[in-house]
Amino acid sequence: MIFVPHAITGKLLRINLTDKTAKEETIPMELYKRFVGGRGLAAWYLWKETPPGVDPFSPENKMVWGTGPLTGLPIQTAYTNWVGVTKSPLTYGYCRNRCVSYFGVMMKKAGYDMIIWEGKAEKPTYVIIDDGHVSFGDATKLWGCTTDLTQIVMQEITGPGFEYAVIGPAAEKLVRYATVQSGTRSFGRGGHGAVMASKNLKAVAIRGTGELTMANPEKVRELSREQIKQLAASHGTKRMQQLGTTNIHGMVNKLGDCPYKNFQSSYNPKHEKIDEERIKYTVRHAGCGHCIISCWKYVAVKEGPYAGAWCEGPEYETQWAFGDMIDNDDFAAIIKANQLCDQYGIDTISTGNVVAFTMELYEKGILKKEDLDGLDLKWGNMPAVFELLKKIAYREGIGDILAEGAARAAKKIGKGAEKYAMVVKNMEMPGYEPRATVAHGFQYLTNTIGPVHSIGYGTQEVFQRPWAVDPRTFDGKGELTAFNQNRLAYMETVIWCTFAFRSEWHDPKLLAQIFAAATGWEEFSTVDTFMVVGERVWNLERAFNVREGLTRADEHFPDRIMEPIPDGPAKGCHWTRELENKLLDEYYKARGWDLATGWPTRAKLEQLGLKDVADELEKLGKLPK
Amino acid sequence: MIFVPHAITGKLLRINLTDKTAKEETIPMELYKRFVGGRGLAAWYLWKETPPGVDPFSPENKMVWGTGPLTGLPIQTAYTNWVGVTKSPLTYGYCRNRCVSYFGVMMKKAGYDMIIWEGKAEKPTYVIIDDGHVSFGDATKLWGCTTDLTQIVMQEITGPGFEYAVIGPAAEKLVRYATVQSGTRSFGRGGHGAVMASKNLKAVAIRGTGELTMANPEKVRELSREQIKQLAASHGTKRMQQLGTTNIHGMVNKLGDCPYKNFQSSYNPKHEKIDEERIKYTVRHAGCGHCIISCWKYVAVKEGPYAGAWCEGPEYETQWAFGDMIDNDDFAAIIKANQLCDQYGIDTISTGNVVAFTMELYEKGILKKEDLDGLDLKWGNMPAVFELLKKIAYREGIGDILAEGAARAAKKIGKGAEKYAMVVKNMEMPGYEPRATVAHGFQYLTNTIGPVHSIGYGTQEVFQRPWAVDPRTFDGKGELTAFNQNRLAYMETVIWCTFAFRSEWHDPKLLAQIFAAATGWEEFSTVDTFMVVGERVWNLERAFNVREGLTRADEHFPDRIMEPIPDGPAKGCHWTRELENKLLDEYYKARGWDLATGWPTRAKLEQLGLKDVADELEKLGKLPK
Repeated sequence: MIFVPHAITGKLLRINLTDKTAKEETIPMELYKRFVGGRGLAAWYLWKETPPGVDPFSPENKMVWGTGPLTGLPIQTAYTNWVGVTKSPLTYGYCRNRCVSYFGVMMKKAGYDMIIWEGKAEKPTYVIIDDGHVSFGDATKLWGCTTDLTQIVMQEITGPGFEYAVIGPAAEKLVRYATVQSGTRSFGRGGHGAVMASKNLKAVAIRGTGELTMANPEKVRELSREQIKQLAASHGTKRMQQLGTTNIHGMVNKLGDCPYKNFQSSYNPKHEKIDEERIKYTVRHAGCGHCIISCWKYVAVKEGPYAGAWCEGPEYETQWAFGDMIDNDDFAAIIKANQLCDQYGIDTISTGNVVAFTMELYEKGILKKEDLDGLDLKWGNMPAVFELLKKIAYREGIGDILAEGAARAAKKIGKGAEKYAMVVKNMEMPGYEPRATVAHGFQYLTNTIGPVHSIGYGTQEVFQRPWAVDPRTFDGKGELTAFNQNRLAYMETVIWCTFAFRSEWHDPKLLAQIFAAATGWEEFSTVDTFMVVGERVWNLERAFNVREGLTRADEHFPDRIMEPIPDGPAKGCHWTRELENKLLDEYYKARGWDLATGWPTRAKLEQLGLKDVADELEKLGKLPK
Repeated sequence: MIFVPHAITGKLLRINLTDKTAKEETIPMELYKRFVGGRGLAAWYLWKETPPGVDPFSPENKMVWGTGPLTGLPIQTAYTNWVGVTKSPLTYGYCRNRCVSYFGVMMKKAGYDMIIWEGKAEKPTYVIIDDGHVSFGDATKLWGCTTDLTQIVMQEITGPGFEYAVIGPAAEKLVRYATVQSGTRSFGRGGHGAVMASKNLKAVAIRGTGELTMANPEKVRELSREQIKQLAASHGTKRMQQLGTTNIHGMVNKLGDCPYKNFQSSYNPKHEKIDEERIKYTVRHAGCGHCIISCWKYVAVKEGPYAGAWCEGPEYETQWAFGDMIDNDDFAAIIKANQLCDQYGIDTISTGNVVAFTMELYEKGILKKEDLDGLDLKWGNMPAVFELLKKIAYREGIGDILAEGAARAAKKIGKGAEKYAMVVKNMEMPGYEPRATVAHGFQYLTNTIGPVHSIGYGTQEVFQRPWAVDPRTFDGKGELTAFNQNRLAYMETVIWCTFAFRSEWHDPKLLAQIFAAATGWEEFSTVDTFMVVGERVWNLERAFNVREGLTRADEHFPDRIMEPIPDGPAKGCHWTRELENKLLDEYYKARGWDLATGWPTRAKLEQLGLKDVADELEKLGKLPK
């Protein structure tokens, strides 16, 4: 195995917050060979360095932030991508976030492929990483500040030229789905922000001025031209340029795939009112450097009750969470909800889902006005929603319970509330109906990070790309899901943006060639080799979850998914527990895992070069006989 | 007259928005000799280039933005200062604003002492000035955006390294006291923002990378050390470092100098609740470069109903306007009001005064709830105030009338409302009671820009510095006011921050020496020479107002100032129309102006080297016989 270390730094930065030390370490070449970078390498360090059963909020939990070989290089759909992994306080399993702020670029240019955060600062702290120099500052006064102000004050402190990753008040209150905000982007799902808060780490500033090299820049340029040609010719790109991810809203609804009123239906009859509203509110298209897709949108509300509200977004998921999911058809109100979530630092998907859950409890009479601090939480009552967001972020009144997430809140509330918590593994489900798109939904059960749309996206069902698959059938969907998961694990290891791969511009061969040209790592000039990395990473992540207690019994949908969808294009569609079991069997089999437990087998792990993982699991009694 | 042109660029940039042209012009040395720079030079161009009686909102009105010789130089209390002048849509007279954002530094480094804005763009436009290169962009989509978003989007457009001056929705609606926002600072008083909007100019971005030189850098450094020593030893500096301008709140109240409930009293019995609250909310001290005073404060609300609100501020005036003036003793609510005013782009002083006016009309039954779109505008009802701010900014409902300012609104409302409009020359008065501090108040009548506290500040009365004067007496206050006005005209021409000059660190000799060392302009190494410039500038500004119709009859207080203060430390104090007349006589006499009209005489103008101004006034029939 020949490896020319272009496009990697070979170094990690270990920052211990307990004793305020920072040291550089070499990342062994053996690890690059196994995990390449990004999500794969980050997952390895988390696996290796955290003790089994670690409390997510304890100093022993770690956050591993990583760049990939392509991060920071002038390559379409790759430039800004970086990741962070930790143990989630929402799922108590593996938590991975991908982010497209410029923080990753700075990290790479500062000389680090990875940053490992460990320990816990004695008091609120900010950290400045300025190329090789790390300093620690007192963030006591910043504690409690919203994420927008925190980044502005950090800029006062550092001067220009830095990028930031910060938390808001929700993380400080240990809201279990609190985010890390970086610029206008975030580590959204799974509560990474709350982990950061538990370490008393309020903000990180980073500046890197190093130059990154490529093995064969001429070749990269040539292949990039082809990639740009493909992207530019794509209808999908045009839609993304126009509407960003919200371009799919109408299509998803028409597919009967859009959870409505807390999954009461999968079709929003009023969806057309908000389908393409983002166009009207967009004041500026933006995006990552070196990407013509330009999917970011700055939107502003210029009149009406929410005049003055703005955000960068909302993505499709947020549009769904604060639109369809809570029966709100005022796009301006979605913008305001997005802005508040960003400022407080809470995940829009989990938050919108939790709000919908609360609204259904209110509808069903399980929660009354007096339980809700007087809020009239009927469907679509957005002023009440804004109040509720604040209560969640600051853990005031009912917000203190809801800050635990729908699953834990339902247990506290009782009275049959659990029926309405639309969760898998304690995490709230995102904006696609598992009854209408079976493989895309099945990933919710089996993903290593819980029900997250982006980590095993069923493009074949939702977009009929790269090949067409009937979204309603069950046969073969276990296997298809495993493929999609492996594919995205490889993407996030390199790191490619998932949008490089989702629609009709899908050309994995080209991406593999670009990677090889940039890194000089010729071994990875074919897709097949890369898919092995994806599978290896997935198995490693699964091993982490198994170590933390995961078994087959955890992989099931809420009861509502067993009920037929009452109306809309997917009317009558539903899962059964038999189908669930059948697909789990099929999936575990496709993965080479044990059917009884859903645990990876020694054979599979060794086949993937993860003998050390198998040994460790065996020691813990978590390897199938 | 020898002049070494260090510290000036010698150039102005003329930007015509009608035909989208930009050209550089030389500023004649003769003009520097007369007006030095900053406010003086800007006033000259406004005088020279706008036709008499120009409509403030017409393309023929101009905005002249200027730097001073010291702008951008590494000199304490001078570095960031820049100014803008135009004809005010509030007073229909001269409008000057001083701002301490970095925009001025960039302007100077881009090579311009002045920028003249003329004409009107066909549609919303932004302008980028990148050193010598000027480009025009379509701001149609930005129109309607708040000032914070506008600056963020402009940064997306320009990339890093620029500074911005932008307007918000209030300016676009031609609210007569709309601001220009630049970073977190503003052109506050007189409606400069509305003029900018009338030109369809939404935003200006500027970057300058040139180097500025000084005649004698070693001498400057030596004198600066002395200045820093004086500043550092000062109690005033320590208070400013701790509390910014709000450090005076308690003192002003104890002097009975703090207008309370729309000037119903001059003492807020509950003032102690908010006197030093800014400390509690401060998360970051900041300030201009090269100034140890560091008077800026980022403040954040971290709990309670306004949690999440933040701003850079509030200054004393804002604290007063949304505190004492409307009987609100919740500092968190003041922060939120400040934030909203900044985002909408409205002057906190005029706005708070207008809100107080409206509250008093509500108290007196002149305006009822139904006149106020249902708002219960009782004293201190801050949620209603926030709604009202939005109505003013967007000219919704009652806000459309209030957007005209208290004076014009009172006329429209009728029913005796005029009695409660606390205005001079149609501009709302600031946060010092003219009955309690006579000279400081008398400036409200005679200032060239209307009742603005900072342009003729009566430091002798408020701070007993640089020498002590009894604030309650009337004798000699006309003459004292003329002195204070001239002094500050010189300050804002150089440009020094007024804080270099206000309190016990007052050492004008040192400042004059620093100026001479920086510029090489030895003639100005004494204070006396400079005071002549100040007087010259003041007379020029007065001439502008005379040309626009000003006479002695305009210089009077509202009736309430003739009533004795009912309580507090200044109980019983009041003006009479006789005293008003007596002081006007004394003031005009001290100024060498005509007593009957308040117009400058030919003799005075010629003595100040303004023969051309006298000639022009004579042509217009506005020179006293």
